[in-house]
Amino acid sequence: MAQASVATPDVAVIDGGGPGISASCARLFALSGMKVAVAARTPDKPVLEKLEKEHGVRRYGCDASDPADVAQLFQTIVRDLGTPRLVVHNIDGRVPNIFRKTIIEAEPEMAFATIRNAAFSAFLVGQQAARLMRDNAPNAQGARGTIIFTNASAALKGFPASGAFAMACHAKAGLAESMARELMPQGIHVAQVPIDAAIGFTQEDGTRAHRRAGTTVDDNMADPDHIAETYLQLHRQHRSTWAFEVVLRPWVEKW
Amino acid sequence: MAQASVATPDVAVIDGGGPGISASCARLFALSGMKVAVAARTPDKPVLEKLEKEHGVRRYGCDASDPADVAQLFQTIVRDLGTPRLVVHNIDGRVPNIFRKTIIEAEPEMAFATIRNAAFSAFLVGQQAARLMRDNAPNAQGARGTIIFTNASAALKGFPASGAFAMACHAKAGLAESMARELMPQGIHVAQVPIDAAIGFTQEDGTRAHRRAGTTVDDNMADPDHIAETYLQLHRQHRSTWAFEVVLRPWVEKW
Amino acid sequence: MAQASVATPDVAVIDGGGPGISASCARLFALSGMKVAVAARTPDKPVLEKLEKEHGVRRYGCDASDPADVAQLFQTIVRDLGTPRLVVHNIDGRVPNIFRKTIIEAEPEMAFATIRNAAFSAFLVGQQAARLMRDNAPNAQGARGTIIFTNASAALKGFPASGAFAMACHAKAGLAESMARELMPQGIHVAQVPIDAAIGFTQEDGTRAHRRAGTTVDDNMADPDHIAETYLQLHRQHRSTWAFEVVLRPWVEKW
Amino acid sequence: MAQASVATPDVAVIDGGGPGISASCARLFALSGMKVAVAARTPDKPVLEKLEKEHGVRRYGCDASDPADVAQLFQTIVRDLGTPRLVVHNIDGRVPNIFRKTIIEAEPEMAFATIRNAAFSAFLVGQQAARLMRDNAPNAQGARGTIIFTNASAALKGFPASGAFAMACHAKAGLAESMARELMPQGIHVAQVPIDAAIGFTQEDGTRAHRRAGTTVDDNMADPDHIAETYLQLHRQHRSTWAFEVVLRPWVEKW
Repeated sequence: MAQASVATPDVAVIDGGGPGISASCARLFALSGMKVAVAARTPDKPVLEKLEKEHGVRRYGCDASDPADVAQLFQTIVRDLGTPRLVVHNIDGRVPNIFRKTIIEAEPEMAFATIRNAAFSAFLVGQQAARLMRDNAPNAQGARGTIIFTNASAALKGFPASGAFAMACHAKAGLAESMARELMPQGIHVAQVPIDAAIGFTQEDGTRAHRRAGTTVDDNMADPDHIAETYLQLHRQHRSTWAFEVVLRPWVEKW
Repeated sequence: MAQASVATPDVAVIDGGGPGISASCARLFALSGMKVAVAARTPDKPVLEKLEKEHGVRRYGCDASDPADVAQLFQTIVRDLGTPRLVVHNIDGRVPNIFRKTIIEAEPEMAFATIRNAAFSAFLVGQQAARLMRDNAPNAQGARGTIIFTNASAALKGFPASGAFAMACHAKAGLAESMARELMPQGIHVAQVPIDAAIGFTQEDGTRAHRRAGTTVDDNMADPDHIAETYLQLHRQHRSTWAFEVVLRPWVEKW
Repeated sequence: MAQASVATPDVAVIDGGGPGISASCARLFALSGMKVAVAARTPDKPVLEKLEKEHGVRRYGCDASDPADVAQLFQTIVRDLGTPRLVVHNIDGRVPNIFRKTIIEAEPEMAFATIRNAAFSAFLVGQQAARLMRDNAPNAQGARGTIIFTNASAALKGFPASGAFAMACHAKAGLAESMARELMPQGIHVAQVPIDAAIGFTQEDGTRAHRRAGTTVDDNMADPDHIAETYLQLHRQHRSTWAFEVVLRPWVEKW
Repeated sequence: MAQASVATPDVAVIDGGGPGISASCARLFALSGMKVAVAARTPDKPVLEKLEKEHGVRRYGCDASDPADVAQLFQTIVRDLGTPRLVVHNIDGRVPNIFRKTIIEAEPEMAFATIRNAAFSAFLVGQQAARLMRDNAPNAQGARGTIIFTNASAALKGFPASGAFAMACHAKAGLAESMARELMPQGIHVAQVPIDAAIGFTQEDGTRAHRRAGTTVDDNMADPDHIAETYLQLHRQHRSTWAFEVVLRPWVEKW
């Protein structure tokens, strides 16, 4: 099997730039020797500036639901860093006023924006990733690249008063599964990771939140540093045993 | 339990106006004594004119992916026929050039149009149906109304070279499940019927196609007249035993 | 398509003889013109005697987890009534002291008995039904016969402190799905109906329980008379649109 | 959080002693510093003798479908090596003449033996593991122990002519899910790993088979060494992000 040169670090692209999974992935991927790009609607957030300063992470502005913007983003990254071997779509996409809205209350415009932000962006990012990765040589694990979609428990179950988000998450799950069946036999590992929990994040004092407010049980939120470990393991998984879906949940979560 | 008067026929609305499931539903519902409205982008198709002439089915023009159009449609139907007790969303929504496109080939605009046509229209139709039905009195089966979403096998499985349709069908499935969990305890029966097969239709000579071209096995396509029977059974199901999902497939279908 | 003579009533066999689904099925099938046999470990229960007296239902003693007993049962029914066209396996199988036992507490012997009673009996009954039905001529719906497995929500989800029952119900579900894929293309309709609820039953005063003790909401238990209606609809379903799985739950059930 | 002493190596128990997953797990766990026990019906196989010689793996004879035998096995291991922190159930359990048998052909005795060997043994092993692990102190990842059930694609789908194996694999899946919901909140990580593929193994010449006979595509069988890596990752996963199910399949596998 032809192998990528050991000397070339992998290029990783993370779409979505929050202080949770995206920041943890950027940090871990950089510490693992990858060249890391993070794309966000607002790339000048303190959390991203910190990642740039401490870990050399590159920041890019991008509206991931705009086809031209996404195409431009990947061209720029290829030019700046090289062709990606790992692309993570980590955009939740809910507009603020869609939360906990019943099917009666949810405004159609807000429902549409949620689908566009969360699911159509996954299509656009996934398409660019697939287009570029199929020209990569297989690496030591036999992979031309890895595409990971973060998802939510709403991908697994349609909860009440959550129709618009259920649509977006289910759409993203359907896309991921279709891409997995299509691209895996071409050597591209496609995975979906639904997080069935509230997700912790790095707080302003630098410590990580890992406990829901008002509770006394440790680790009852999903720690994004540990989520990032799973993403790295998926990226390094040998093609003879690829996982498509890994649902992560804290030990005490009801499901 | 308060009951609707026996003398009042149920009002049924079918969104989507093709010669398959929509026509079979319209015919069966009319023969069962309901007042039937069919809404389609092109309401002056021969198949709908025939239904009007032979069964008194009312035809309405509507772009089901337009919020204002859908709101207007339901207002008009309430005025013309009364408040619906049965609403069927039967729109496939694929734009022609999205068929069998790989993730590389599928044009973003076409993918977006498929999601909008198939899934966002389901949100709009479902929302109007829910809004109206919650004011219905429970009928003899304890139901204020029934909302049925036709779906495809792409709702159950993301097939390769079918990413856009997988997104749309999964989104519709997520919506249906969310609405079921939300509305059933309010007395509205929400169901999803994925048809895991090619669907037969009424041919120009008036006979029904029920066999795939080039095969010799009988009934290897789903007969829409029999699909319509399941829809009627779902509408008449007592609320002590509501089914949410019924997958229909011909006896010889591989799955 | 060759059809069974209209004059010949269908022979229906119900395995399991309780006052809930089995009694409701026996009554409905008899009222629909079928010749009905009910097999139970204890066939001289009052509920079965009543069915015999009022509806001509035949009673048979059978340990459904014993291969020889089940083979003998079907031979006897063929001789007495004719070859079955509808077989319902409606055995829960839990031994009393397995309820709500944690994995630590559950006694291995009780866990094993639960699997044997609930799942192995389904294999034995399903095998005899399949063996006999494949020689039936297709009826007007194209079917040689219908085999229905009642199941529980434990077939859909492994609940805590319920390992043994989860094993039994999952095993039955796996069997049903395998048989469906194998037998449907041979003209035998195989279906599984998980009831996601407590099930009502006929009380001693002749009225049906349809409300959980201590609640004020109507129809919050699954009414077995309505479950039986679904079984009859499945039996009459045309082979161009066969349903394999129908989950039934009351309108107010959480899931 | 109280932590296990760094100095104490984890005790791992593998039930099932074949040259595939069991051998790969034993080797990897030993190389990772664990004390490893392998239990098999026939513990004096060359593959196990080699593991003992090269990696210090302890061999135990055990009929895993016999309650007393399994209880005795775990008592002996606790005495010999200490309380287990990682238990893998890796028993397929099919009796030879159950392969590809239709529901008509499968002998009841063989079907019963398959369920007993594959699923009841999982109950027995899982019960002993749970009983012992709840007394462990949480380790650095917050876990008292890890229980992993290997499973097959028959756990995910009931294939035709495979009813008995579908029953056994579904039963094991139901058990695993029930145990996960019950034991995770007690600090015990329960996981199920269905392998959706033929599994490679170490051949007599010491090389690993990773390609199906007669094919030219590399890595079209699941390599057990890579499966073992996933098991080790699951064992080391932090309790804030536990995965319950990981399906592994080769890149070219159809699903």
